[in-house]
Amino acid sequence: MTSLVVGSVAFDTVETPFGRVDDALGGTAVYFSVAATLFTQVKLVGVVGTDFPDEATALLRRRGVDLSGLQRRDGRTFRWVGQYDYDMNVAHTLDTRLNVFETFHPAIPEHYRDAEFVFLGNIDPVLQREVLSQVKSPALTALDTMNFWISGAREALVDVVRRVDAILINEGEIRELTGRYNVLDAAREVQAMGPRYVVVKRGEYGSFLFAGREMFLVPAYPTFDVRDTTGAGDSFAGGFIGYLDRCGSLDLSDVKAAVVYGTVMASFTVEDFSVNGLLRANAGALHDRFKRLAEITRIEVPVDIPEIELVTEGV
Amino acid sequence: MTSLVVGSVAFDTVETPFGRVDDALGGTAVYFSVAATLFTQVKLVGVVGTDFPDEATALLRRRGVDLSGLQRRDGRTFRWVGQYDYDMNVAHTLDTRLNVFETFHPAIPEHYRDAEFVFLGNIDPVLQREVLSQVKSPALTALDTMNFWISGAREALVDVVRRVDAILINEGEIRELTGRYNVLDAAREVQAMGPRYVVVKRGEYGSFLFAGREMFLVPAYPTFDVRDTTGAGDSFAGGFIGYLDRCGSLDLSDVKAAVVYGTVMASFTVEDFSVNGLLRANAGALHDRFKRLAEITRIEVPVDIPEIELVTEGV
Repeated sequence: MTSLVVGSVAFDTVETPFGRVDDALGGTAVYFSVAATLFTQVKLVGVVGTDFPDEATALLRRRGVDLSGLQRRDGRTFRWVGQYDYDMNVAHTLDTRLNVFETFHPAIPEHYRDAEFVFLGNIDPVLQREVLSQVKSPALTALDTMNFWISGAREALVDVVRRVDAILINEGEIRELTGRYNVLDAAREVQAMGPRYVVVKRGEYGSFLFAGREMFLVPAYPTFDVRDTTGAGDSFAGGFIGYLDRCGSLDLSDVKAAVVYGTVMASFTVEDFSVNGLLRANAGALHDRFKRLAEITRIEVPVDIPEIELVTEGV
Repeated sequence: MTSLVVGSVAFDTVETPFGRVDDALGGTAVYFSVAATLFTQVKLVGVVGTDFPDEATALLRRRGVDLSGLQRRDGRTFRWVGQYDYDMNVAHTLDTRLNVFETFHPAIPEHYRDAEFVFLGNIDPVLQREVLSQVKSPALTALDTMNFWISGAREALVDVVRRVDAILINEGEIRELTGRYNVLDAAREVQAMGPRYVVVKRGEYGSFLFAGREMFLVPAYPTFDVRDTTGAGDSFAGGFIGYLDRCGSLDLSDVKAAVVYGTVMASFTVEDFSVNGLLRANAGALHDRFKRLAEITRIEVPVDIPEIELVTEGV
């Protein structure tokens, strides 16, 4: 029961209408790890600079995250500066300093290689493929990507998409990847490339799962406090992968439950800046939101659907 | 079992990436009527010009729509010219000619006044209130509105909102009406004004129902063919009101089912231009989509939720 994550470890400076943080802990591998450790053990692959503080590694270690694969390089840690307006589906990047992440080359420690679940965060698809070639026989591999790679490294991206079991991708990105506007069309096209599971993330509107010919639609968990959506997608991935790893099954019902756990996990993340909201998530709170979401989306087919015909045709 | 609708009767010229129609039958009262007549009898209040063709009235009459309240005035019928890009949540208005609709003053025929369900389409809230004062004791009154009235006739709008049982409103509009960005906050605020039911329409992302302290979230029915979203909201209203009228109950389970019927009704509308998609809807097809939507949104709470705790805390 181990999940491996490869992705960024970062400091984010974020301003939203609800506040601001400076150089707060973030990055795909961090959000993923904090989320997934609610379900399973996580082995992290990433890179930080010499400025990465002990408190940050301590936080991850307290959750049992294996940091053998976290490289420490001369230089500064990846930094992102972003801003959101009220519509927090859209991040406005003000500054990106890749720093040590620019030359990141993931090295997979020997004892990581039998990880059962592998999540390839949004990095160069060439590197994603390298990671894939270093793991032994995972039960599930999944990747995320972004427009930068879709437009700039399309061929390599499609190549790695063909090799994974699952792709988690934003609505806008799957449109760009496939050139199809209709999300159903786009998902079918990506399924045809190879992945058994396509998860389309729609921000505050929830997500779609496509699995074979099955479809599953989950609205986002409605919350009164949406303060910062940074990391929501990575937390979703952590909940999704972590849950599947925990239950050790890929039955469709489990994959659906994993989407719901991803959804409620993300709802904790957006309630505060950095990983602060996510750190407040625990087993009980996750369960509660899972059940609540089931309740408020439950469509009961009326037992006695009134016989409806065109009541007045021909009158 | 009668529903009364007051609203526009129009000719729409619409261009989308999937085609174009010129002077096609449209308007709130038309979409509402074509939808609601799948469930109940409709009495229409509206106005057309001398250019309104017999085929259009014949279409409505074939569905048993009572047109006693449809005024015919010298002049031309209301015309709207609009355009949509791929994102069909947003209509771009190229031209609006109110024509005879500009001086529309709804007159409610005597035999309309005991209608049990009343839908006030998006017209001047002063006129909406006049209509309310002319109906006897409806089981449910509902209204729709738009940004034009929210910014231009706020006081009159709030006054009429206080008097109706239900409001159907777009996400952007409820934000504008309340000054609150979070849809949950906004809905609570509108509930506090008076309406027992607040339905927030989110275009392709579905809708929210707020009823007392209950909440119900329905994604849009996913369809491969989205050609023109004009009239989707009015068709939703027709399905919603028509179904409630048909089942003659306002139990929460029926109000929820009405939201689902509104949802699937709208899915037929968007599949073609004008009322063409809606005209293809029938009892069987509505049922099928209702059941399908229930199926693909059904969240099963795992019987054996694995005991999740922070598995590795303190390691």
